[in-house]
Amino acid sequence: MRILVTGAAGMIGRKLSARLAADAAIAGQPIETVHLIDVVAPTPPAGARFATLCEAIDVAAPSTVAKAIAARPDVVFHLAAVVSGEAESDFDKGYAVNLDATRALFEAIRHERERSGGAYRPRLIYASSIAVFGAPFPETIDDDFLAAPLTSYGAQKAIVELLIADYSRRGFFEGAALRLPTVVVRPGPANRAASGFFSSIIREPLCGREAILPTPETTRLWCASPRAAVGFFLHAAALDLERLGPRRSLTMPGFSTTVGEQIEALRRVGGDAVVRLIRRQPDESVRRIVFGWPGRCEARRAQALGFVAESSFDEIVRIYLEDDHVPAVA
Amino acid sequence: MRILVTGAAGMIGRKLSARLAADAAIAGQPIETVHLIDVVAPTPPAGARFATLCEAIDVAAPSTVAKAIAARPDVVFHLAAVVSGEAESDFDKGYAVNLDATRALFEAIRHERERSGGAYRPRLIYASSIAVFGAPFPETIDDDFLAAPLTSYGAQKAIVELLIADYSRRGFFEGAALRLPTVVVRPGPANRAASGFFSSIIREPLCGREAILPTPETTRLWCASPRAAVGFFLHAAALDLERLGPRRSLTMPGFSTTVGEQIEALRRVGGDAVVRLIRRQPDESVRRIVFGWPGRCEARRAQALGFVAESSFDEIVRIYLEDDHVPAVA
Repeated sequence: MRILVTGAAGMIGRKLSARLAADAAIAGQPIETVHLIDVVAPTPPAGARFATLCEAIDVAAPSTVAKAIAARPDVVFHLAAVVSGEAESDFDKGYAVNLDATRALFEAIRHERERSGGAYRPRLIYASSIAVFGAPFPETIDDDFLAAPLTSYGAQKAIVELLIADYSRRGFFEGAALRLPTVVVRPGPANRAASGFFSSIIREPLCGREAILPTPETTRLWCASPRAAVGFFLHAAALDLERLGPRRSLTMPGFSTTVGEQIEALRRVGGDAVVRLIRRQPDESVRRIVFGWPGRCEARRAQALGFVAESSFDEIVRIYLEDDHVPAVA
Repeated sequence: MRILVTGAAGMIGRKLSARLAADAAIAGQPIETVHLIDVVAPTPPAGARFATLCEAIDVAAPSTVAKAIAARPDVVFHLAAVVSGEAESDFDKGYAVNLDATRALFEAIRHERERSGGAYRPRLIYASSIAVFGAPFPETIDDDFLAAPLTSYGAQKAIVELLIADYSRRGFFEGAALRLPTVVVRPGPANRAASGFFSSIIREPLCGREAILPTPETTRLWCASPRAAVGFFLHAAALDLERLGPRRSLTMPGFSTTVGEQIEALRRVGGDAVVRLIRRQPDESVRRIVFGWPGRCEARRAQALGFVAESSFDEIVRIYLEDDHVPAVA
């Protein structure tokens, strides 16, 4: 089995690569090669028993992506994206990467399929987002609720979802768009996602550093851990995607919590001194973006298909401490 | 007021042009010029008191569309499209016209706005379709139901809706996407829309010609007349579109009927002899497309905003006889 991962140097991409190295197989089929691409060269995962090719490839350069597809990977994990904050501040770049480059990837697959006489038909697992939803919301967003994004990032994700459904219906690939909850706790330095503070208010204080909280404690989020997110991708790659029918977008499971509940979970682990490192600094632009995101979803279809996530923020903090926490040097 | 109409040689485009000529104003503002474009040169409407420029312009040629936008029309009616049947049989052409050319038009507006220092911000009224919906459906499709199209045409319409919402939110134009019901009774020769038979089974027998019915009489459709459809566009052009908020797509009013009810309305007008001209000839590909379309919608938002349509098929047949019927030469 040959795997291609775009956006492989990102947080989810690195963790996914590490899991591929550890598992060495998808759905019982041994992995032969993994091709990791990103704008900066990804690092090969430790301990892989398969050949790993790491390349610095800008997905916005269509010819290089077509070259990666010419190797006919069986599974494509398409994670490469300009994140929400940047797609909002740079309209052209957001559409160029999140829409045009993605469509060029899909077209490369379609044309490779033509060249193969119809034999080539990979799985395409896409990192979508609950940012496809936009307020006003019902109390719980179910699987039939409309995609009405309030950011360009969300619009781009929703557009790609429609392309995935159409390309899958046409038989060009077997696609699935996984609408990721807000993924917390993200390790490492902050990226330009508007949702970054949901992670930094846990991660930074646990390392003895101050963190900025730009929105009220009542801010509600639908969240899952990075470990669960990687699990979603691997589960989708092993699933019979025909079971999805024509609706190829799935809201991933997670759970609904508030910033206030996050802070209380942090207090249970780190105590008052750690919590005091969170500094309130309201930011209207972040608040506006985040309040347009759903705080509570139903993920019935995904759960029925076997996707699983955490059910408490204490569990998420524990996973962060196990997987990613780097204690501050005293 | 300057008006641009794309797809102006099409059925709705011609009727819209005629109404513009008759009304000579939109929302009380006199029309100065109307620019009509299509792949074949549109015919200027009779009796217009304003300057009419008719041009054969392929919207898939971005530079020519940019030229039309350089004249800074105040209202753009974007009707040009490859219809459902053709977008299904020609994947590349469907995406080239229905998505790429439309996006090029939107980009031309955005760049013209930049050149104007932000002063230029036209209204953009788009012909979307209830083909953005796909089965399975609840009994009635409400304004919060997801767009899950089952044709490439529907996917392209749904994608453009997302672009319209994003461009409007960004302030690049004031957009509205009108999800047209199945428009019946269409005059003139059949086009390649899968829905064409809903019109021909009325139009052709009334002229003494045979018509093919490819689906069962139980086939349900959500429909409105061409006159109502033109009314939707003119109402949207005169409306304060800020009232739509961020959700720029509106399911247009119509009413739910069946092919069997259509035939009974035809019988009341033309008698049994006319009805006998309908020949059953089941076509699985048409049936599959049409059964994926919604038969019953709620159009609460649109109705609250003042959009109106017919409420019986007898009314629609009467409108056809008034507006379009050309009696057969005996």
